[in-house]
Amino acid sequence: MNTYRTPNFSAGPATLPTAVLQEAQQEMLNWHNKGVSVMEISHRSSDYIAIAEQAEQDLRDLMDIPDNYKVLFLQGGATLQFSAIPLNLLQRTADYLDTGAWSSKALKEAKRYEKLGLGKVNLVSSSEDNGYTSVLDMATWNLSDNADYFHYCANETVHGVQIFDVPKLDNDVPIIADMSSCILSQKIDVSKFGMIYAGSQKNIGPAGLVIVIIREDLLGKTSDWCPNLLNYQTQVQASSMSNTPATYSWYLAGLVFAWLKGQGGLETISKKNQYKSKLLYDTIDSSQFYSNLVDGQYRSVMNVPFFLNNDKDLSSAINQEFLRQADKAGLLFLKGHRMLGGMRASIYNAVEIEWVENLVQFMQEFEKTTA
Amino acid sequence: MNTYRTPNFSAGPATLPTAVLQEAQQEMLNWHNKGVSVMEISHRSSDYIAIAEQAEQDLRDLMDIPDNYKVLFLQGGATLQFSAIPLNLLQRTADYLDTGAWSSKALKEAKRYEKLGLGKVNLVSSSEDNGYTSVLDMATWNLSDNADYFHYCANETVHGVQIFDVPKLDNDVPIIADMSSCILSQKIDVSKFGMIYAGSQKNIGPAGLVIVIIREDLLGKTSDWCPNLLNYQTQVQASSMSNTPATYSWYLAGLVFAWLKGQGGLETISKKNQYKSKLLYDTIDSSQFYSNLVDGQYRSVMNVPFFLNNDKDLSSAINQEFLRQADKAGLLFLKGHRMLGGMRASIYNAVEIEWVENLVQFMQEFEKTTA
Repeated sequence: MNTYRTPNFSAGPATLPTAVLQEAQQEMLNWHNKGVSVMEISHRSSDYIAIAEQAEQDLRDLMDIPDNYKVLFLQGGATLQFSAIPLNLLQRTADYLDTGAWSSKALKEAKRYEKLGLGKVNLVSSSEDNGYTSVLDMATWNLSDNADYFHYCANETVHGVQIFDVPKLDNDVPIIADMSSCILSQKIDVSKFGMIYAGSQKNIGPAGLVIVIIREDLLGKTSDWCPNLLNYQTQVQASSMSNTPATYSWYLAGLVFAWLKGQGGLETISKKNQYKSKLLYDTIDSSQFYSNLVDGQYRSVMNVPFFLNNDKDLSSAINQEFLRQADKAGLLFLKGHRMLGGMRASIYNAVEIEWVENLVQFMQEFEKTTA
Repeated sequence: MNTYRTPNFSAGPATLPTAVLQEAQQEMLNWHNKGVSVMEISHRSSDYIAIAEQAEQDLRDLMDIPDNYKVLFLQGGATLQFSAIPLNLLQRTADYLDTGAWSSKALKEAKRYEKLGLGKVNLVSSSEDNGYTSVLDMATWNLSDNADYFHYCANETVHGVQIFDVPKLDNDVPIIADMSSCILSQKIDVSKFGMIYAGSQKNIGPAGLVIVIIREDLLGKTSDWCPNLLNYQTQVQASSMSNTPATYSWYLAGLVFAWLKGQGGLETISKKNQYKSKLLYDTIDSSQFYSNLVDGQYRSVMNVPFFLNNDKDLSSAINQEFLRQADKAGLLFLKGHRMLGGMRASIYNAVEIEWVENLVQFMQEFEKTTA
């Protein structure tokens, strides 16, 4: 079988490690010589439970997840968590930081529940006015005295804004972070968080899974309005199997975790990610043609939006031509998000250094022949 | 690669057609010679949208879905729909029929919302008293005058009870059917329903997908308490892509639909299913050793629970021995559901006739050497 792999800069669903896909392919019809596919076995079988538990353990190892945190493998992506979080945790007041498209969506869904009387939803700070190119100074934040939780998005996939340091809040407010597009890209200190969640389709596996890492003391506060399946306590008690989970996606996530351990874990992959993003930002910054508008200290290591001649119009001649030539050169999914326009290269864990080198070379050649 | 396929009677996640898995395996790393896996491409790309639309069209063809019905490919399984249905449709009163484990769970979740004041939830009839072995006569049902909807489970996966005829209600109440374990097993008249839904992990594809088929006039009645992602109207407007859907599961479902069309569609597969279930029920009925307690007219064509010497205890010596020998004979996942005990053979569309013949032969030999 042909194993040529096209450089793929999709923001998600995103490229996966070749070795993982090869292993999945090899055992697709015949897992462990049992004559069945992993996707055909009962989630209650000892074979499947072993797969599920190993995946969780590997994730715990990779992220050093403390024992007082539960790990859930759920469905519905990060977006369903935008509802599940207030339904499980909002009792009085919640603080939300707005730094881009995704934190903004989370805020909007929480605000819907505020109107219904679930609790107060407080906007701490918004960088919408600067086009989500930075994060406002913490000194200007309007934090609540005693919030149920503080929510932020650690990496804004659309706007390419990453918050590398966990906000140092004065109080003991549990910090909840949407890490959909940066989880497993670098070491973090899980103990600083009340909850971390991440849709799978970037650094974890195929779409259709969301991982929730939650500190035990936050369980048991769920509103009666919360659909039973979205109740964290219920899912903890059922080991994420309150109903049939997305078994094949969970298995593939497990293969990705094992691959990542084999690569040397988060410290090694973080260096690779730093190298790739530096290469790309350096190319952009050393050019008069390309630009990235994000404040240096918040530039995402995972998602790099950029413009050609500051042209944001996706349908402009120059942007169309760039995409046409990139496609011809075998560089896929560089089109920017429709909200921001221009281009975006997503360079997750499974994106090879060589692919970024190819991209940078292509960009330089395109600039020479066009600018 | 070894393509021996072990006879697999799992209730779900269940066996899939060998040809489907082979096709998926073949193009796992290199879909349509593009050097990427289907699970690695953006759900917004024209390539993926073509996959998604083709899957929907094939499902519409197979089931003759009228144009005034929308088809959604969502996440969370049928169980999340137990919440989504009242949240989207309950305004005054809803009627629920209780015929086994799954309709009972749906009722329980709706009852939670009744307590919160969403609307009245009326139990129409329950066959719990007869151990869910039959469905009570419609003359005894306590139907509401003007319900928002009538909910039932067309096939109870645990109890092996199938309702073949759509209940003929006096009024125009929209009928909602959970068809998780019988969808695509036979022709049905979709126009008799307000909504049909089905978790994927039986006759559709891998777990992690739920299909909702809903009549247009039922849209737009959603409670504000409904998580935005579970709002049918929102998902209809977004073509099921309000957020990233379970793209790979959707693709695999599409391969299953294409396979089913290639097999001759629902009329052909229905004959195969009739043949398989008759073989199994005849074997059970002609034996003093095996028994199935379900009323003849409600015996499921998909899930056949049975007992050895009426022994329901999963850990009894005889049941353990049956499972041990079955496993040795390469007949997988015959253990009954923990609620009912005994054995269960699930014989979905992808279960080969030969597998059921093997099972029947094994059962007869086991009876001879044991009874």
